[in-house]
Amino acid sequence: MIGVAVVGYGYWGPNLVRNFCEVPGARLVSVCDQRKERLAAVQTRYPAVSVTDDYNGVLADPNVHAVAIATPVSSHFRLAMSALMAGKHVLVEKPMTATVEEGRQLVAEAARRNLVLGVDHTFIHTGAVRKMRDLVADGLGEMYYYDSVRVNLGLFQHDVSVLWDLAVHDLSIMDYVLPARPVAVSATGVSHVVGEPENIAYLNLFFESNLIAHIHVNWLAPVKVRRTLIGGSSKMIVYDDIEPSEKIKVYDRGITLNGNPQKNGEKVYQMLVGYRTGDMWAPQLDTTEALGLELRQFIDCIGSGTAPYADGNAGLRVVRILEAASQSLAQRGRVIELEQTRWVA
Amino acid sequence: MIGVAVVGYGYWGPNLVRNFCEVPGARLVSVCDQRKERLAAVQTRYPAVSVTDDYNGVLADPNVHAVAIATPVSSHFRLAMSALMAGKHVLVEKPMTATVEEGRQLVAEAARRNLVLGVDHTFIHTGAVRKMRDLVADGLGEMYYYDSVRVNLGLFQHDVSVLWDLAVHDLSIMDYVLPARPVAVSATGVSHVVGEPENIAYLNLFFESNLIAHIHVNWLAPVKVRRTLIGGSSKMIVYDDIEPSEKIKVYDRGITLNGNPQKNGEKVYQMLVGYRTGDMWAPQLDTTEALGLELRQFIDCIGSGTAPYADGNAGLRVVRILEAASQSLAQRGRVIELEQTRWVA
Amino acid sequence: MIGVAVVGYGYWGPNLVRNFCEVPGARLVSVCDQRKERLAAVQTRYPAVSVTDDYNGVLADPNVHAVAIATPVSSHFRLAMSALMAGKHVLVEKPMTATVEEGRQLVAEAARRNLVLGVDHTFIHTGAVRKMRDLVADGLGEMYYYDSVRVNLGLFQHDVSVLWDLAVHDLSIMDYVLPARPVAVSATGVSHVVGEPENIAYLNLFFESNLIAHIHVNWLAPVKVRRTLIGGSSKMIVYDDIEPSEKIKVYDRGITLNGNPQKNGEKVYQMLVGYRTGDMWAPQLDTTEALGLELRQFIDCIGSGTAPYADGNAGLRVVRILEAASQSLAQRGRVIELEQTRWVA
Amino acid sequence: MIGVAVVGYGYWGPNLVRNFCEVPGARLVSVCDQRKERLAAVQTRYPAVSVTDDYNGVLADPNVHAVAIATPVSSHFRLAMSALMAGKHVLVEKPMTATVEEGRQLVAEAARRNLVLGVDHTFIHTGAVRKMRDLVADGLGEMYYYDSVRVNLGLFQHDVSVLWDLAVHDLSIMDYVLPARPVAVSATGVSHVVGEPENIAYLNLFFESNLIAHIHVNWLAPVKVRRTLIGGSSKMIVYDDIEPSEKIKVYDRGITLNGNPQKNGEKVYQMLVGYRTGDMWAPQLDTTEALGLELRQFIDCIGSGTAPYADGNAGLRVVRILEAASQSLAQRGRVIELEQTRWVA
Repeated sequence: MIGVAVVGYGYWGPNLVRNFCEVPGARLVSVCDQRKERLAAVQTRYPAVSVTDDYNGVLADPNVHAVAIATPVSSHFRLAMSALMAGKHVLVEKPMTATVEEGRQLVAEAARRNLVLGVDHTFIHTGAVRKMRDLVADGLGEMYYYDSVRVNLGLFQHDVSVLWDLAVHDLSIMDYVLPARPVAVSATGVSHVVGEPENIAYLNLFFESNLIAHIHVNWLAPVKVRRTLIGGSSKMIVYDDIEPSEKIKVYDRGITLNGNPQKNGEKVYQMLVGYRTGDMWAPQLDTTEALGLELRQFIDCIGSGTAPYADGNAGLRVVRILEAASQSLAQRGRVIELEQTRWVA
Repeated sequence: MIGVAVVGYGYWGPNLVRNFCEVPGARLVSVCDQRKERLAAVQTRYPAVSVTDDYNGVLADPNVHAVAIATPVSSHFRLAMSALMAGKHVLVEKPMTATVEEGRQLVAEAARRNLVLGVDHTFIHTGAVRKMRDLVADGLGEMYYYDSVRVNLGLFQHDVSVLWDLAVHDLSIMDYVLPARPVAVSATGVSHVVGEPENIAYLNLFFESNLIAHIHVNWLAPVKVRRTLIGGSSKMIVYDDIEPSEKIKVYDRGITLNGNPQKNGEKVYQMLVGYRTGDMWAPQLDTTEALGLELRQFIDCIGSGTAPYADGNAGLRVVRILEAASQSLAQRGRVIELEQTRWVA
Repeated sequence: MIGVAVVGYGYWGPNLVRNFCEVPGARLVSVCDQRKERLAAVQTRYPAVSVTDDYNGVLADPNVHAVAIATPVSSHFRLAMSALMAGKHVLVEKPMTATVEEGRQLVAEAARRNLVLGVDHTFIHTGAVRKMRDLVADGLGEMYYYDSVRVNLGLFQHDVSVLWDLAVHDLSIMDYVLPARPVAVSATGVSHVVGEPENIAYLNLFFESNLIAHIHVNWLAPVKVRRTLIGGSSKMIVYDDIEPSEKIKVYDRGITLNGNPQKNGEKVYQMLVGYRTGDMWAPQLDTTEALGLELRQFIDCIGSGTAPYADGNAGLRVVRILEAASQSLAQRGRVIELEQTRWVA
Repeated sequence: MIGVAVVGYGYWGPNLVRNFCEVPGARLVSVCDQRKERLAAVQTRYPAVSVTDDYNGVLADPNVHAVAIATPVSSHFRLAMSALMAGKHVLVEKPMTATVEEGRQLVAEAARRNLVLGVDHTFIHTGAVRKMRDLVADGLGEMYYYDSVRVNLGLFQHDVSVLWDLAVHDLSIMDYVLPARPVAVSATGVSHVVGEPENIAYLNLFFESNLIAHIHVNWLAPVKVRRTLIGGSSKMIVYDDIEPSEKIKVYDRGITLNGNPQKNGEKVYQMLVGYRTGDMWAPQLDTTEALGLELRQFIDCIGSGTAPYADGNAGLRVVRILEAASQSLAQRGRVIELEQTRWVA
């Protein structure tokens, strides 16, 4: 049995607690929060779980083998690093850290101590995103674009911009679904409230190939849109997370390039680009709760010493893009090259 | 009676011909095209209209008072300029010209000769866009953003990029709907077919205020999307041109900024940003064919000596943004400032 | 404090338990079920609540003032009647009883003992249905029709037909929303599995006026539809429960009847029927959980001695229609008159 | 060349005229209407076509081999019968006749004279309906239901009820798509305008098997719905004619009946009904204009002496149901048996 402590019982913590209660091989030992009323809420619901506001006590508890951290981003590094140093496996809420440097240190520390470092990129465990990864792996032809829109009337965050709050989802999904990694990024955005972080942003991601990715996030949209288009030369995918049942649609559509591009020296491009329109297909999706699958994997990885899909490197790749995008945004969209290093491969 | 000649009977010309036949005060005199089979098609359908492949003959015809040009963009300047110099009023297909310099000369020539120069920005005559303009004029509070998506599996154009083919619609609508003019532009995009112009592009428009505009156009999307979001501090608009009947939805939603931003020196931002969610309202729209209204206005303007909504200056403002966006796109999104001059006010 | 016992912890019971825990003035005393494993589930989640498989013991408990029954329909009468006879207030899952006669006895017994008898017509406490009732009360002009579709790939019930399983929702909503009561009913339907109750049914309801109501229910539809149209001469409502946010849309549409119907003896009907198309309006809806509101009302009614919206008479009116519809369905749609009696007014 | 005359140039006639102009092997000889202004409209558009208000003259014209009738229903029989008696092939607008008796005489007369009698059941020539027919022919398992909704804010017809105006479409589609023929019909409906025919109606169709069909038509709905569900034991189809591109969706869903229905004498139905949910598939559809295909077929049939898909018998089968449904509607839904005779096989 892996003993687990959940740190932070705010918006997301209750979901971790509820799901950990049902993961085979895991035992929820304690919940830690600094707010008395949150701990009281835990006690009413889960009388067998101990509650505490003393994080050091949690780390000192030999029954706790793993710590799941669901606190504000700014505290992720400090809490995760001290847990790793106390020999605990760690699962951190996304984004993993507030800076690349922090993320780099966590990854190094976990590697040094042979501990599992997981990031809660929940979406990659949904049936829809897993199906998309399979479809992309099976091949869409030459990859053309990845375009995602994630907008709604959402709560203003006061510590992080809409990029760190919403685009983090798209970046973690893209990291899981696409085989290629971006090499540069640019972003534009605006804050419409003085003194607050940006509430609307547009992010471009460049790749070594002709693939282009674009992410649009907005806290001030009147309607909720959660739509990703992935275009390849032979197939295209629409992932609409608002759809109740048919979230993934695969289109047998695209262009075909054929013929002889040069004929007696004249341009005959018009003969080259053919259109292919065909059937649409919406595969049935597994509807198992994503967080439950993710926590099972985390516990399994502790047992087997393997890495979860969203390990520290995945978390770091996402933070690296967010950090570069924030720099770009501050410079009206200047392109920032992403250093390609071994540790984020 | 204003005698009218239509030049170019390809994709769009037939719509001009059909509509001119029903505009009071106008008489369709002739149709000019270099393709014999297109002229034959006109003759079958409209035996009373004369057909010709001799453009100079059209310009020499004293019964022709106005020329409507629906040919490829690269020929707009030459055909329009010679018509103006022959003393004809001119309506040009969008985009008005292939360069700002060409547009500037047309505007100057038309002004010098007191001729009407109109641009066929058809969308601004739809019930939906006219309603949007009224709603914006009535006030949405502080203007936050204008976001438009126009994607589908469309024909590759070989002479112009997707910006000049699709974004021209959004730019002409935005020019009509928004009171403010952009001051700078940046764009990114990719061509996925060697030797062809860009088939996907993302365009950012910056304004003097905090307003930000963004346009996404794509010829290679598996689904058709035609959606514009306009966000203000007190109201927001969704314009979905795919919707059969409720194309415009107005949301009484937004944020309210109130309270005392500083309280004993601490930040109390969380108290400042209030959310307002309210009713949605879909106004009934006039469904009169836009092109018919536009042509009536063009003919009326010739009679009264006034300027149509989309006059040469409007056409030039749009071309100016397209030209700058193309420059930016070639430089991976470098911001291009838009010179503010009197003639495009 | 009103002490409450929940009887039946199957599909719906957990929702009753969870909500009763948060109703001011109520205290969840015990949960009763005959399945040990269900009681164990209660104990894990709610250790302070006592569990039992002895219903008589529940009725004998002086701390229990009210009983909420969420068991199969066939047991409703027996459990509810013994609770009333033990002096307990009763809330019964819908449909209230399996027959009109049973319902009549429950209503009489509750009246005799001055006990509150409520029926769990949950939908009438949703923001959407409450808004519809208000809209109808404010007037849609002359009432024309009420048309409801409730279909999806649902579980076959083995004890009741799709009428008793699904149409009960529509009938309870209609009973709450419409001021008029049906005077006759007919129904057609089929069972596609030998030995099983009908899985598809169509129900017609006739009123004294020209109002007509129709309900379509189906357990074997490939897609989920939950849509009600209410048509009046001056306004019409579309209630789409699948829509995530705009569940209620009000259309300012209809026909106008005017002019002189007879002109020199000829029929001039064509001049009489005018069409009015106008704006659509989607009012903001209260999103408070319906069951929570319902249970609060039930507890309040016990305190004040008043009747809940869905009292025994409402439950009985719905059962009366279901019973008549079942008779009609067995006779291929013969019209069954609904006896109008004082007790169901 | 088959010479064709079109009779009636009101709402639908212009579509016949436009399409006949492009059918190979056909020549539009004349258009006949009693309204001078309608004939003038033809002359402007089609100067080569002769116009007349003299129907007898049309029938006497040896250059006219076939007559297409697009006049009000009440005149179909008279016009079609005199055309047949003049030796002309006939295409009649739907519904074919106002009564079964009239239809029977037309069918007999055409057979006696070896003339082609076609009915303009346009929808059966659409790509969507042809695909549905193929899918049904390939097998959906045991056929369960056919459910169609066709409602919108439509024009009141003064001579025919909504059944004859709208349900005729569904009946003609169903006749083409389903291999089985209904054996009985019932209908309910209401007229909401004194002195006018019914504007809302519900139609049930019974078959020898367990298949049930239902059609809902309404001229007074605030929204346009055109949706047909076809349910089989192994596959289900949704045909949504409002969808711009994916009009046909095929669901690999249904129930499976297996296992041992009796186990030690107890009913164990719950083990028997299994649910199967699977992928959805939207086949690409031919978008050729249906009327054009239909007219080509009509002309081809004249040449080859074969019967079109919608021949007189098909038209008669539809009229037979409409007549019976009207009788049923007048008797509040009494079931009317449909006589099965050879001539409508």
